[in-house]
Amino acid sequence: MKRVFFLIANKAVTEPFNLNDMPGSGGRMDIVCRFISQSFFVSHGIRKDSDAYVLLKGMPDPPKAIRIVGNEVKYLAPDERNIGGMLNKALKEKVDESWKKVSHGIYISRKNLENLIAELQNLGDLFYLKEDGIDVFEKDFANPIFILGDHLGVSEEDEKIILKHAEKISLGSVSYQADQCVTILNYILDRRMRIDRSLL
Amino acid sequence: MKRVFFLIANKAVTEPFNLNDMPGSGGRMDIVCRFISQSFFVSHGIRKDSDAYVLLKGMPDPPKAIRIVGNEVKYLAPDERNIGGMLNKALKEKVDESWKKVSHGIYISRKNLENLIAELQNLGDLFYLKEDGIDVFEKDFANPIFILGDHLGVSEEDEKIILKHAEKISLGSVSYQADQCVTILNYILDRRMRIDRSLL
Repeated sequence: MKRVFFLIANKAVTEPFNLNDMPGSGGRMDIVCRFISQSFFVSHGIRKDSDAYVLLKGMPDPPKAIRIVGNEVKYLAPDERNIGGMLNKALKEKVDESWKKVSHGIYISRKNLENLIAELQNLGDLFYLKEDGIDVFEKDFANPIFILGDHLGVSEEDEKIILKHAEKISLGSVSYQADQCVTILNYILDRRMRIDRSLL
Repeated sequence: MKRVFFLIANKAVTEPFNLNDMPGSGGRMDIVCRFISQSFFVSHGIRKDSDAYVLLKGMPDPPKAIRIVGNEVKYLAPDERNIGGMLNKALKEKVDESWKKVSHGIYISRKNLENLIAELQNLGDLFYLKEDGIDVFEKDFANPIFILGDHLGVSEEDEKIILKHAEKISLGSVSYQADQCVTILNYILDRRMRIDRSLL
């Protein structure tokens, strides 16, 4: 089974940024880094069955999309600064509509949300994480693709595009950060968890 | 209900460190930062019902213990660099056996593992996270205190001390990073989750 995590980063910048100020001038690039870290890392290992996509919508040159393939990744560490350095390197590249390889397992392109969803649709079932969705424990997952927003959520415009193709699911009533959603989803998938709701 | 997370950081340094090199010369201080971040942050908020403790065992002046009280914390952001800055500030203080307040909700002291366990015992039930423990879903929790190791785990000597007072519990067969264990435990507690094991 493959698992894919897709983050929409509303303000994450589309040019190289200062690694010492990822939350500020980086446009919450720290959220992107934590999202990527949680998509792949377990203790002393990388999830080979995970892929991650990030849509960077911040200034000055949006949109840019990052794709990370767990089965190909090398030389990545779980700390924010290391992942930020990798993103910085990718953002130095010229981009066009196709995926350009930046380093092992790291790709960048000029794809927008519609392009990405069209591409992801062929890989599995799309789910959109949102507090008012169907409880995650009522679903079974085969090759799931989870779409998440950042601290600003997902814009109405983007949500319309997503909901044409994705089912809304929820982790519960608490609003978690994007990276936390990924960790929780990975855990649920690791344990192939179904819950007897009477026990909640 | 109160929840407490306690990390044993085997190599995390006990003097101010370079924020640009937390995984290296900081002795995996990045793990400490992520652990603290996950103990407290949800989307746009702080868990007031969480406390976190970290035992720093690295050079040059071990042990030092950090205590963070969710109900008192102010001015903390979830990114590693921000939390690293807070730890750096704490490590500039002179320490003795009692908790010294560094800033809102942040304390430091010269306590060792035995001191900390003696203190924590009065607050609730101690659980030690380890792959071969009892399944987390077989336990109910009231004021739990979860003890975790870092990338090196917990030394045999420390484990002996812990197991005199704590019950071993497990999140399953996958080895997760300390911050991931915290996120998963928070989620399980948020949903007060019990699982019908026949569904696993």
